[in-house]
Amino acid sequence: MRLVTFDPQHVQLVGSRVGVLFRDRVVDLYAAQVAIARRRGLDVVDARRTAAAVAPRDMIAFFEGGEDARRTADEAVAFVAETLERGDDLVGPGDELVAPAADTVRLRAPVPRPRRIRDYLTYEAHAAGSGLAVPEAFGSVPICYECNVETILGPQDLIPWPAYTDQMDFELEIGFFVGKAGRNISVKDAPAHIAGITIFNDLSARDIQFYEMSLNIGPSKGKSFGTVMGPCVLTMDEVDENAVQCTARVNGEVWTQADTSSRRYSFAEVLAWASYCEPVFPGEFLAVGTVGGGCGLELDRWISSGDVLELEASGIGVLRNTVGAKEEAPPSAGIPSYKGAPRAGH
Amino acid sequence: MRLVTFDPQHVQLVGSRVGVLFRDRVVDLYAAQVAIARRRGLDVVDARRTAAAVAPRDMIAFFEGGEDARRTADEAVAFVAETLERGDDLVGPGDELVAPAADTVRLRAPVPRPRRIRDYLTYEAHAAGSGLAVPEAFGSVPICYECNVETILGPQDLIPWPAYTDQMDFELEIGFFVGKAGRNISVKDAPAHIAGITIFNDLSARDIQFYEMSLNIGPSKGKSFGTVMGPCVLTMDEVDENAVQCTARVNGEVWTQADTSSRRYSFAEVLAWASYCEPVFPGEFLAVGTVGGGCGLELDRWISSGDVLELEASGIGVLRNTVGAKEEAPPSAGIPSYKGAPRAGH
Repeated sequence: MRLVTFDPQHVQLVGSRVGVLFRDRVVDLYAAQVAIARRRGLDVVDARRTAAAVAPRDMIAFFEGGEDARRTADEAVAFVAETLERGDDLVGPGDELVAPAADTVRLRAPVPRPRRIRDYLTYEAHAAGSGLAVPEAFGSVPICYECNVETILGPQDLIPWPAYTDQMDFELEIGFFVGKAGRNISVKDAPAHIAGITIFNDLSARDIQFYEMSLNIGPSKGKSFGTVMGPCVLTMDEVDENAVQCTARVNGEVWTQADTSSRRYSFAEVLAWASYCEPVFPGEFLAVGTVGGGCGLELDRWISSGDVLELEASGIGVLRNTVGAKEEAPPSAGIPSYKGAPRAGH
Repeated sequence: MRLVTFDPQHVQLVGSRVGVLFRDRVVDLYAAQVAIARRRGLDVVDARRTAAAVAPRDMIAFFEGGEDARRTADEAVAFVAETLERGDDLVGPGDELVAPAADTVRLRAPVPRPRRIRDYLTYEAHAAGSGLAVPEAFGSVPICYECNVETILGPQDLIPWPAYTDQMDFELEIGFFVGKAGRNISVKDAPAHIAGITIFNDLSARDIQFYEMSLNIGPSKGKSFGTVMGPCVLTMDEVDENAVQCTARVNGEVWTQADTSSRRYSFAEVLAWASYCEPVFPGEFLAVGTVGGGCGLELDRWISSGDVLELEASGIGVLRNTVGAKEEAPPSAGIPSYKGAPRAGH
């Protein structure tokens, strides 16, 4: 099942909803539950009340809902399939479309503000290709950096280009959402805590990233200005974590192709380690790192403003974003002595 | 003004409240507003309704409330002072104490879950003393790592000792809360966005911290298991950011004394840089790093389970915690090949 967070375009000011991608449509879980309740004979007011109680209000609530939420989604999809077979239309009461065409809605990041994000570096090829030393520790424990959750972008957003960088880059990654809280989760139990996967484009300003990483406490401005996620959450029943085909295209040209097979750690091992002596919660995201060759730094090819970047992962779909213009530096922000960092790379 | 988040012990199940330290008491902003409304002649129900509307529900709401919130707090303190002068008692209607003795309440971290935490390394002495190379970048831009907000501890909590470390350490730091949202905040405007300061004990498991930092993307398990904050927020009208006296004591013995004068960057410069091309929000915390000599790693002295650790900062008070026992490793958690990391230090 492919779950999305979307803003319906046909109803104003309702906020984001949870939906399921089905054929070329988005099944609106709330609107479908209203329609189902109406078919059972409830009046509009009661139908809306029922739907509001049953349909998860956001993606994290969907994760927390577990099997109940999944049943609600399955029921909605079945309702839409039957209605289409009968040739009935899908406009519900109150002018709500139960299953609008996917290209008419605005997709958001699947979880617009994940509770916490850690990005684990698990592909040796990326570590070596990025000019990082690959230490013994890499082979012993999964290592991550903690990401900023305040600047998450979705499938239709422009990629920001901060004033302080001249060297913008993307990173082609996938990762998984935690669906169920836990602490000291064993490798064996971990799969039951994983809700699904999505694409993670860990935007990087390489010049300043490597400049600040010279202090050895990790990246900050080099990564924290924006991260793109989406377009959907592919639930784990449809995922072979070692066989996701990943492709990056820039203006239609393939820059890299890779799969997810050559990782040092499985999802379960990453989650077990992530939860070792600290809690994890539904709505957290654990990225498993850039695939080998999955960024401009490794290829020594660089994106520019106006480029259309497409990151594709089999089963998940295409995360397509246009690279925005470089932001103008505000007259008085920042630190006066900062004149830009040296370019990173080969 | 010294603001706290506390759990009243005399009313069950009300959750945490915002208070002001006054003499040896905590003025409960909600309970004081109930009492003030009662004195104005409102009945209990209306008084509670008024108080709930006026008293900030938590510390972040206090920050967001700006001058209004400050007036509410000033009014509550004045009410308590007058009542005490008259010799009246401070038990309000509904058995709520307006100003319980400070040693009878449970203090929480001032913001139990800060929206975001970044820890900037701004003291050159700590960088050099911790064996970090001090690169040219240190002198050009403030550099931080992103902290875990899920494991924040307060003044009365036990310090956790994760199963995966044999080398526990503290860090004596202060930092400031963002009180007002912004983006591209100038150095000149920054002070208006800062709410106040508190003590930040950035607990560190040194063995694994330096082991994982060998990959050069920063610390994760070495820091993410717990961070202690408190005991109060000292508002900026009472802060000289370069003259805070900081002391660390272990079992009553002074291990280090330092002040906050020898930093490379001011609070305003840190905030300007932190907000450069990314938003900041009320409830974020920006730590300004460990004072010179402010951790066991620099001193080559190490805390043990059962030790009583006191971090003191002038104006803020004492953050006192007992070091807990090492957690037992769960039988099946973690990564099988991990057998512990080498000790860090001299």
